[in-house]
Amino acid sequence: MYRFNSDYLEGAHPNIIDRLVRTNSMQTPGYGLDPISDSAKDKIRAACKAPDAKVYFMVGGTQTNYTVLDSILKRYEGVLAADTGHVAVHEAGAIEYSGHKVITIPEKDGKVSYDRAKALLESFYADGSWQHMVRPGAIYISHPSEYGTLYSKAELALLRSLCDEYGMRLFLDGARLGYALASQGTDLTLGDIAELCDVFYIGGTKVGALFGEAVVFTNPDLGEAFFTEIKQHGALLAKGRMLGIQFDELFTDDLYISIADHAVKLAMRIKNELKAKGYRFYNDSYTNQQFPIISKEKLDSLEGLVALDDWGPFGDIEDKMRLVRITTSWATSEEAVDALLSLL
Amino acid sequence: MYRFNSDYLEGAHPNIIDRLVRTNSMQTPGYGLDPISDSAKDKIRAACKAPDAKVYFMVGGTQTNYTVLDSILKRYEGVLAADTGHVAVHEAGAIEYSGHKVITIPEKDGKVSYDRAKALLESFYADGSWQHMVRPGAIYISHPSEYGTLYSKAELALLRSLCDEYGMRLFLDGARLGYALASQGTDLTLGDIAELCDVFYIGGTKVGALFGEAVVFTNPDLGEAFFTEIKQHGALLAKGRMLGIQFDELFTDDLYISIADHAVKLAMRIKNELKAKGYRFYNDSYTNQQFPIISKEKLDSLEGLVALDDWGPFGDIEDKMRLVRITTSWATSEEAVDALLSLL
Amino acid sequence: MYRFNSDYLEGAHPNIIDRLVRTNSMQTPGYGLDPISDSAKDKIRAACKAPDAKVYFMVGGTQTNYTVLDSILKRYEGVLAADTGHVAVHEAGAIEYSGHKVITIPEKDGKVSYDRAKALLESFYADGSWQHMVRPGAIYISHPSEYGTLYSKAELALLRSLCDEYGMRLFLDGARLGYALASQGTDLTLGDIAELCDVFYIGGTKVGALFGEAVVFTNPDLGEAFFTEIKQHGALLAKGRMLGIQFDELFTDDLYISIADHAVKLAMRIKNELKAKGYRFYNDSYTNQQFPIISKEKLDSLEGLVALDDWGPFGDIEDKMRLVRITTSWATSEEAVDALLSLL
Amino acid sequence: MYRFNSDYLEGAHPNIIDRLVRTNSMQTPGYGLDPISDSAKDKIRAACKAPDAKVYFMVGGTQTNYTVLDSILKRYEGVLAADTGHVAVHEAGAIEYSGHKVITIPEKDGKVSYDRAKALLESFYADGSWQHMVRPGAIYISHPSEYGTLYSKAELALLRSLCDEYGMRLFLDGARLGYALASQGTDLTLGDIAELCDVFYIGGTKVGALFGEAVVFTNPDLGEAFFTEIKQHGALLAKGRMLGIQFDELFTDDLYISIADHAVKLAMRIKNELKAKGYRFYNDSYTNQQFPIISKEKLDSLEGLVALDDWGPFGDIEDKMRLVRITTSWATSEEAVDALLSLL
Repeated sequence: MYRFNSDYLEGAHPNIIDRLVRTNSMQTPGYGLDPISDSAKDKIRAACKAPDAKVYFMVGGTQTNYTVLDSILKRYEGVLAADTGHVAVHEAGAIEYSGHKVITIPEKDGKVSYDRAKALLESFYADGSWQHMVRPGAIYISHPSEYGTLYSKAELALLRSLCDEYGMRLFLDGARLGYALASQGTDLTLGDIAELCDVFYIGGTKVGALFGEAVVFTNPDLGEAFFTEIKQHGALLAKGRMLGIQFDELFTDDLYISIADHAVKLAMRIKNELKAKGYRFYNDSYTNQQFPIISKEKLDSLEGLVALDDWGPFGDIEDKMRLVRITTSWATSEEAVDALLSLL
Repeated sequence: MYRFNSDYLEGAHPNIIDRLVRTNSMQTPGYGLDPISDSAKDKIRAACKAPDAKVYFMVGGTQTNYTVLDSILKRYEGVLAADTGHVAVHEAGAIEYSGHKVITIPEKDGKVSYDRAKALLESFYADGSWQHMVRPGAIYISHPSEYGTLYSKAELALLRSLCDEYGMRLFLDGARLGYALASQGTDLTLGDIAELCDVFYIGGTKVGALFGEAVVFTNPDLGEAFFTEIKQHGALLAKGRMLGIQFDELFTDDLYISIADHAVKLAMRIKNELKAKGYRFYNDSYTNQQFPIISKEKLDSLEGLVALDDWGPFGDIEDKMRLVRITTSWATSEEAVDALLSLL
Repeated sequence: MYRFNSDYLEGAHPNIIDRLVRTNSMQTPGYGLDPISDSAKDKIRAACKAPDAKVYFMVGGTQTNYTVLDSILKRYEGVLAADTGHVAVHEAGAIEYSGHKVITIPEKDGKVSYDRAKALLESFYADGSWQHMVRPGAIYISHPSEYGTLYSKAELALLRSLCDEYGMRLFLDGARLGYALASQGTDLTLGDIAELCDVFYIGGTKVGALFGEAVVFTNPDLGEAFFTEIKQHGALLAKGRMLGIQFDELFTDDLYISIADHAVKLAMRIKNELKAKGYRFYNDSYTNQQFPIISKEKLDSLEGLVALDDWGPFGDIEDKMRLVRITTSWATSEEAVDALLSLL
Repeated sequence: MYRFNSDYLEGAHPNIIDRLVRTNSMQTPGYGLDPISDSAKDKIRAACKAPDAKVYFMVGGTQTNYTVLDSILKRYEGVLAADTGHVAVHEAGAIEYSGHKVITIPEKDGKVSYDRAKALLESFYADGSWQHMVRPGAIYISHPSEYGTLYSKAELALLRSLCDEYGMRLFLDGARLGYALASQGTDLTLGDIAELCDVFYIGGTKVGALFGEAVVFTNPDLGEAFFTEIKQHGALLAKGRMLGIQFDELFTDDLYISIADHAVKLAMRIKNELKAKGYRFYNDSYTNQQFPIISKEKLDSLEGLVALDDWGPFGDIEDKMRLVRITTSWATSEEAVDALLSLL
């Protein structure tokens, strides 16, 4: 059976596993204060063209989102996010747990649109009662979004200008960032992201690592005590070099991009061939997540052969057509794609 | 250079590394909902003689302490702990972050003594203003303690009775539990712990794993939504089988105990030989942490040869004698111990 | 100038002021542990036909909402509310501050509709990822709603059944409860509310008191340590008898209802006469808040003469018609209403 | 029966009651945005010689402490306080509820001593693990302390210098500030306090008001969104002018000082006469709280005649001698003091 239902089904890229094996008996200080972690941070700063950025490694995405947001928001501020944003839906209320409201904006193509965010902010400050309401302190975006879509450089620059206008910070959740950077549908480089955001993270868990997210603060006013905040949020890994090792490998010889490129190419092949077969798609994604509409009948026929991610009924005639997510990863093989396409 | 300054300097036991390599390309569901995690949980239940216990895997110690305490405490309750307890000192305020006060009791041999805890509770409820104060809702103990000391079965039973008397829960932090179970100074089995505590955890990070702690709820009234709480606290590992793999190995053929036994035996050898050489010890520890008093002069002479953990000046004549922690682990070699002893 | 822009513009009903003056030099214990507070609680229990209810006095509405919800929700639960609900909008994120998400449902006539709440709950538990999401633990309703509308007894019973079905608690915010009980549009008595809700409060601030809300727990499993929780939330009034005095007066000789009745009758007069004059209304409210649509031109002409609450543009032709709130209270005079009606 | 067991047993000073009566039917905007509140703020700024200070009114002490501390602390910071400080003991964990640890220092004469605070800070930053610990972000002092003692100007200046040295803020809890300012044992003026602290509050509840504390931010970098934070912490009074009225009266014709002076003079009379009778005192207090040691026998004999505050056994021979608190207030009469002294 082949699985396309998520991009974190396997372990790690072989280079990472090899390095873990080779370094296993080394003795190093804990908490990321080791030379391998230092090396990985340097490589990330170089890749971001941000020599002064503060880089921290964390274990998982929700953890990163809620620790970063809690760090960059003032106590009375909330975060703007698309209503489909991960922080708004699938983090079991971690953001609220940390005391902050997620102020949702109806998504547009899975994204926060400048127009809708601007309208919300204008209406907020026009309201005579705004001081009785949660102050928007940051914009959260995921890139790629939960729907596989991408921000253009122009769109990101607009959100940046909005943040500047309203005294907000811009935070980019890059859990799947590799798949954005490797996409042919993007004009946004890692350097652009580092320049336009206040803080963002480079996802490892879904792009070749066992686990791990690299947080990059480019706004020098932020993150001053982030080490302590990581600890406070229960997120400091004792054997921190495990994170350093993984990112050091991912940022050696562009591994991060090349394995993401592999996944995106396979996703494009799936998209193109399914389109040719007449399948409709929910949207036009150029990353590793594809959203075809598949009949329930067909979907049922795949059981035990390939696993896709069923997102529920689509359209009026309930239970006839389903919205499906197909995900490739660094680990997806051509053979698996062949098998999938032969069945659809 | 040999390092004895902590028990989490290396990677993982070779069996774990091998299993990670062997299983790397497997595709499994995330979040611990995989067969290897299920197998590991079964082995842990069996080892605890607690067939109905709920078992969850988490990544690190502080994370486990604050998520478990937040789960078992009511909103208005705090936790009693020794003033040397990890939750009271070295967790960057994670417990307070979750809204709960750590009510400290002066430690006795690194432990919570029944007498002192009982005195505090009696005095608390005798105070006319007790409803204006933080209600003690749980007792937190670490076993072994931060000073390497152990609770006897009788001591644990007394704390249990205190919890019953005052409507509190008993939580045991077993970050180094293996070294307790393998000690010749203990009469407390894993089964006893499971029976006497409401919830406890079996530490992996410091006992052979890359990372990981296994939380065991034996009180059936607790932990009903702990999966969601793990997620809410940012602590849910996406590729959860990494935790399952590690604990499945550790609980195969008693590996957990045998590697701890190795560490404790080396620690006993260090203790005995240093005592024979005339060194005084801060206390009488039977686990993998030993606390000799070493002159500053001698300590300085070790620089670059062996790394010990300097806990600061000891006694009146400041900067002459130092309290030192020597830690062994599953990974410590006889050769390293030979070298250490030849230098001291 | 006459003000109709809120129902908390004046001080307190004269009976309350008189009692404050008369009792000023009495010496009583603090924190509500005084005989007047006891008397007030007894009267409230009697009025609710709930002899075993726990009654607590608090100072303000937001304080009450967030302390009660924090008390009745488990750590991982959120609260369902209409998207127009006070807790969702105008409490500066107090609920999120306490760690809980407000899960919003599109309002229907300013209320939580059974159908929409049921649909949300069904969809929640049908989602394969529900354990990664915030668990609905309570339903919050305001009665009257922020739009002056009322739940019928049948509607409240349906919400009760929904709570029973899904293991949730039902909390009614009665900041303006008097105006509901005195309305001719209601079939819901205080006894019904006490029976159908787990906890609710009787608002004093907007119904004749200087300040104060009386929380009534009728579910015996809740509120066991509420005194301490009030203190923990910074909400315990030192000279607690000030609250007791106010509620003791309000619940003497049905003062609470009779002053609310006065306000509602005036509101009905305004409604009927404005309707007769051809004004359209946003909805059909039978309480002290009325929502006519008034032209901007007319509204501007009132400046300096009467103050109404302008809720913003209404309909397509922006800035031509406005949604306006007119509020009466126990303190509104016939003369003020005459003046208002003569101007509109 | 005469009561000396607290300073908040009665209502409010007659001037306040009169003003409440006179203004009762006025219509003013809520939330403190009324002219009386503005007037009161101006008078407070003038009394503090701090024309640019931000002034906010809150209802009670615990509420003020936890809202202010939450506002001035960064997320990862805790507050230093004497182990007898109100925030450390009698606030039901409100500070921890807001996520911050109270880092206690053994009290010296009921106060935070410069030497002990300095020693703690030096030791904190000398600890290699300080980044794993809660960062001290502010010093909390109460003036007068819970033991009636006072900081000298020199002592306060030292704490100020310590805060400057370690990047901390200085917060003074003035729940009983009037009794400090009126004391003959003080060289510290309101102007000095405004100059040396970052933020402090002037207590009304215990000095003549029904309730109310006036928060004064003199550090211009703090309190930028304090209105919203008050709301977020459930502490915004709807009919805010009730607070304005009370402080406007208290700061008219030095009423605040003159009524405190009355209380302190009576306390001094009690102290002197009891000393003359041979009573020992726990400490040397020059404010309205006095701490004589009284035999249990004598104390029992007072039952039903005068109420004192029994703080428990004193000295070795348990239950023979008791530490007792005698409190006077603006409302205490000479007659009551005569009666008390005739009985002791």
